Amino acid sequence: MINKLVGKIQKLDAPIVVGLDPMLSYIPEHVVKKAFAEYGETIEGACEAVWQYNKAIVDATYDLIPAVKPQIAMYEQFGVEGLKVFQKTVDYCKSKDLVVIGDIKRGDIGSTSTAYAVGHLGGVEIGGKKIKTFNEDFVTVNPYLGTDGVKPFMDVCKEEKTGIFVLVKTSNKSSGEFQDQLVDGRPLYEIVGEHVAKWGEELMGDSYSYVGAVVGATYPEMGKVLRKLMPKTYILVPGYGAQGGKAADLVPYFNEDGLGAIVNSSRGIIAAYKQEKYASFGAEHFADASRQAVIDMIEDINGALKAAR
Amino acid sequence: MINKLVGKIQKLDAPIVVGLDPMLSYIPEHVVKKAFAEYGETIEGACEAVWQYNKAIVDATYDLIPAVKPQIAMYEQFGVEGLKVFQKTVDYCKSKDLVVIGDIKRGDIGSTSTAYAVGHLGGVEIGGKKIKTFNEDFVTVNPYLGTDGVKPFMDVCKEEKTGIFVLVKTSNKSSGEFQDQLVDGRPLYEIVGEHVAKWGEELMGDSYSYVGAVVGATYPEMGKVLRKLMPKTYILVPGYGAQGGKAADLVPYFNEDGLGAIVNSSRGIIAAYKQEKYASFGAEHFADASRQAVIDMIEDINGALKAAR
Repeated sequence: MINKLVGKIQKLDAPIVVGLDPMLSYIPEHVVKKAFAEYGETIEGACEAVWQYNKAIVDATYDLIPAVKPQIAMYEQFGVEGLKVFQKTVDYCKSKDLVVIGDIKRGDIGSTSTAYAVGHLGGVEIGGKKIKTFNEDFVTVNPYLGTDGVKPFMDVCKEEKTGIFVLVKTSNKSSGEFQDQLVDGRPLYEIVGEHVAKWGEELMGDSYSYVGAVVGATYPEMGKVLRKLMPKTYILVPGYGAQGGKAADLVPYFNEDGLGAIVNSSRGIIAAYKQEKYASFGAEHFADASRQAVIDMIEDINGALKAAR
Repeated sequence: MINKLVGKIQKLDAPIVVGLDPMLSYIPEHVVKKAFAEYGETIEGACEAVWQYNKAIVDATYDLIPAVKPQIAMYEQFGVEGLKVFQKTVDYCKSKDLVVIGDIKRGDIGSTSTAYAVGHLGGVEIGGKKIKTFNEDFVTVNPYLGTDGVKPFMDVCKEEKTGIFVLVKTSNKSSGEFQDQLVDGRPLYEIVGEHVAKWGEELMGDSYSYVGAVVGATYPEMGKVLRKLMPKTYILVPGYGAQGGKAADLVPYFNEDGLGAIVNSSRGIIAAYKQEKYASFGAEHFADASRQAVIDMIEDINGALKAAR
């Protein structure tokens, strides 16, 4: 799946991923109203609004982008009904040939990590048959529990050719509280990064590993160091746009081959119609605003990459 | 909810929690066969087996125990159908007045952590109403992202009187890879423990905080240090029994008042019938074996506590 992701990024010349993190407050009023009219002001109504919103954005952007990254928390908050929409979204995106990165940040140990892995990246065995459920192509994984927590994901990835992105340095302000603590003069995130590189060696695709890393756009100096520590690791970069990361800051996350990083934007794309820049589209045409925001984001990042090389 | 948990532990004289982590391989053949006969060798069949297994164990033990800890991964592996059984299990346990600790190990930032928190510990707002979905009393939280990741859970806990247990030192072998790294001569888990104690001060119940900690039974020396660092923190202790932790090792996790820790056993209770010790019950009476294992576990731990004081 890493080969497919790299191939799609090259073909589309678009090292970006759209974060499908549909907060109710992002969804245009007319979409919410229609869903509530049909299902009431209920969980079902909210979930229908989320689904229609997602579908419109995917329909308007899928030909431009290699991948989407649905954030499962935004679905899980609606309980079982929300997770139905998560699954429907994953399935729909896959039907459009998009690579799906489930942003689930799971992490446990042994058989528990295996359970998450088969549920999201493989299939659960029942009566000798393997049955796929959520079926993403990649998921994000939390490394705090160490190799015991990550290896079960890797075992499933190996069999299924699916992949993971391990949290190394996150984009939020307080990420430093634990991640930046100095161990023998080096920050913890570097030690995590070294483990990611080592784990990745066991699961190589053609040029990059099936084990990727998450490194926030908001810390470009750290991105530079981590890029060198993990040369064969694809870096998923959150924090561009709404969280403050700029295109020029992203250059150090890429390798000389122009590959090695995929930049996420969530709110900046899916709620583009709320920005002054795209206000002329109007809420009715929110999906067209998202398409324009995708075009602009690709241009912004590719421009910065070209200027730097 | 921490007051309720402490009260139930005192009333039952049982500082234990039963982990409802139903792997298919634990479930007696007659339960699985019956479910498959009704629903086929399908996700629905497996989920029905899990539900009947859980229900029988809860029915046989609920009067002896203060709390249960369903591990969501074991349900999530079956996708949406599995999560229906997770919800059904939570609801059923609450109807039996058990305190429910959702072992979800979630952790993200900002609005994403809020989404997890409202989905599991509060309620999601739709059209001005708050609607509860998974509705546990406590959940486990991963601290790797720092205060930004934990605070949104605390905000929901404050409003709802629900609580969290933050991973500090986990019970698995490779937990030391990152958690034990020395920062100015002190292991990272101590620094995390200090944060937990500090976060907890903001959310105090009568004698303990709504912010608890997870510290594995397999590292009693570390448990001793962490007990002192976090005097008002309830410690959830995994790793007893099947993972190798012994009752005598657990003494340092408790305070002088005999409170402050709750010990989890999953496989040791729910699959007790598979142990030689309980083989005489037979697979047919697996739930009775679980009840006897609960009685023995309480006696084992209380015995060790009395011997040490």
